Amino acid sequence: LSYAEFGDPVTQLRFEEAAEAPLGRDQVRVRMLAAAINPADINQVQGRYASQPPLPAVGGNEGVGEIVEAGPNVDPAVARVGQRVVFGTSQMGTWSEFVLAGQDQVLVLDDDTSVEHASCMMVSACTAYRMLHDFVQLQPGDIVLQNGATSAVGRAVIQIAKSMGVTSVNVLRRERPDLEGTVSELRSLGADVLAFEEDLETREGLRQLRAQLDRPVHLALNCVGGKSATNLTRLVGQRASLVTYGGMSLRPTQLSTAKMIFEDLRLFGYWMTRW
Amino acid sequence: LSYAEFGDPVTQLRFEEAAEAPLGRDQVRVRMLAAAINPADINQVQGRYASQPPLPAVGGNEGVGEIVEAGPNVDPAVARVGQRVVFGTSQMGTWSEFVLAGQDQVLVLDDDTSVEHASCMMVSACTAYRMLHDFVQLQPGDIVLQNGATSAVGRAVIQIAKSMGVTSVNVLRRERPDLEGTVSELRSLGADVLAFEEDLETREGLRQLRAQLDRPVHLALNCVGGKSATNLTRLVGQRASLVTYGGMSLRPTQLSTAKMIFEDLRLFGYWMTRW
Repeated sequence: LSYAEFGDPVTQLRFEEAAEAPLGRDQVRVRMLAAAINPADINQVQGRYASQPPLPAVGGNEGVGEIVEAGPNVDPAVARVGQRVVFGTSQMGTWSEFVLAGQDQVLVLDDDTSVEHASCMMVSACTAYRMLHDFVQLQPGDIVLQNGATSAVGRAVIQIAKSMGVTSVNVLRRERPDLEGTVSELRSLGADVLAFEEDLETREGLRQLRAQLDRPVHLALNCVGGKSATNLTRLVGQRASLVTYGGMSLRPTQLSTAKMIFEDLRLFGYWMTRW
Repeated sequence: LSYAEFGDPVTQLRFEEAAEAPLGRDQVRVRMLAAAINPADINQVQGRYASQPPLPAVGGNEGVGEIVEAGPNVDPAVARVGQRVVFGTSQMGTWSEFVLAGQDQVLVLDDDTSVEHASCMMVSACTAYRMLHDFVQLQPGDIVLQNGATSAVGRAVIQIAKSMGVTSVNVLRRERPDLEGTVSELRSLGADVLAFEEDLETREGLRQLRAQLDRPVHLALNCVGGKSATNLTRLVGQRASLVTYGGMSLRPTQLSTAKMIFEDLRLFGYWMTRW
């Protein structure tokens, strides 16, 4: 699936047959088994992303495949034909039947990782993992707050937090299709507390949420921006870190100056590509 | 100068005579020589500050005075009658003829510190010093960017940056009384680059400013908030820290999500009282 110009993915993306590319001496040829579609991939096709591939480009930044050919210089201890791999770098053009990758760009999988999990573990799950580890030293019983809880990263945050013994407070929008199904799905993933955006906008909503928490929130994760980011700051305690990894609302974040100065609120951005 | 209720300083502050308070065994009595009036002092009288004294209260959080009496438990190695002192804690009620202070609340001055400098060195100058040291490791030749350059903190930043060999880029409003006099005064303090808010709002203004700088800006200091804080973020480089220590515009800061994620912009608050 390639595109020759940036723009609406629906009109720009074309299914194209391409001749088999010659394999470099340090490269492996990977037959793709599955590839994820992340919001960042869409933004990249739109030309609205921080990193842009040279055009024409093949879409897709992550996925899982099987090595079907290896160049003569490829170290068999690193990668061999028949192994399943994911990619350690972005802009691989994973929305393709075959991908050429340097031997230092592939990560060989255990046999017991499913194709489904492998196809989307490098971006969303890694983003979730790093955000839960790089900014605040979380202890079991600590609390992480996030908006966009239904996103792929949000679901990964719920599960990783659960495995760490960390309580997750998950904010979602009330007006969404199949709210009941979504809520029970997030609960089944391990979501401890569910809240709606409106809950964070009233004193009573905030009071009820705080009553469910036995300690202050020191880490909040934001992929929405705009009013939703402001809402998150209402529920955090002193010296909390708000980590922004997305801005799905396409609106800038409004930030209370007093909150920053007197409550020592800190703001960071997280970009998997830079990590 | 005391106040019985929070509100407009002009109407709430009253000049009052009070009986001499009894001196505690661990206390010194300080005859005030000079006391500063900081924006935070005004906000405190207005009842709009994060920390509020019990009412009625005497205004003023910093100043310099001479010890005229010492309780029997005061260690002469720490404080003696005749010494000039400033205060290491806030809410001392320095807008007064005499102040009682614990021996651990006073800092004895060198003889060669003038009363004028001593009266206002604990809040503004210390804020400037700490902000230049606590967030980014500045090297000679590095650049610090600030708005509110004409404030007491702003002037201290200019001078301390100069002494560190750090270039200061100073943003002020064009529409202000005696612009010419202000500009030449800031230059005489050591301001390297002067810029107007409007310069940061146009491509051409930004281009001209960047042309004057030989490296990216990694530290920006904000005491205004609102649009001015957004303006500062336009001129900073990758992984810059924006430190907010005031919000004179009384407006929240609007923050670009992309700037945070892709350029790793970090935001911190600074509050001298917490340091």
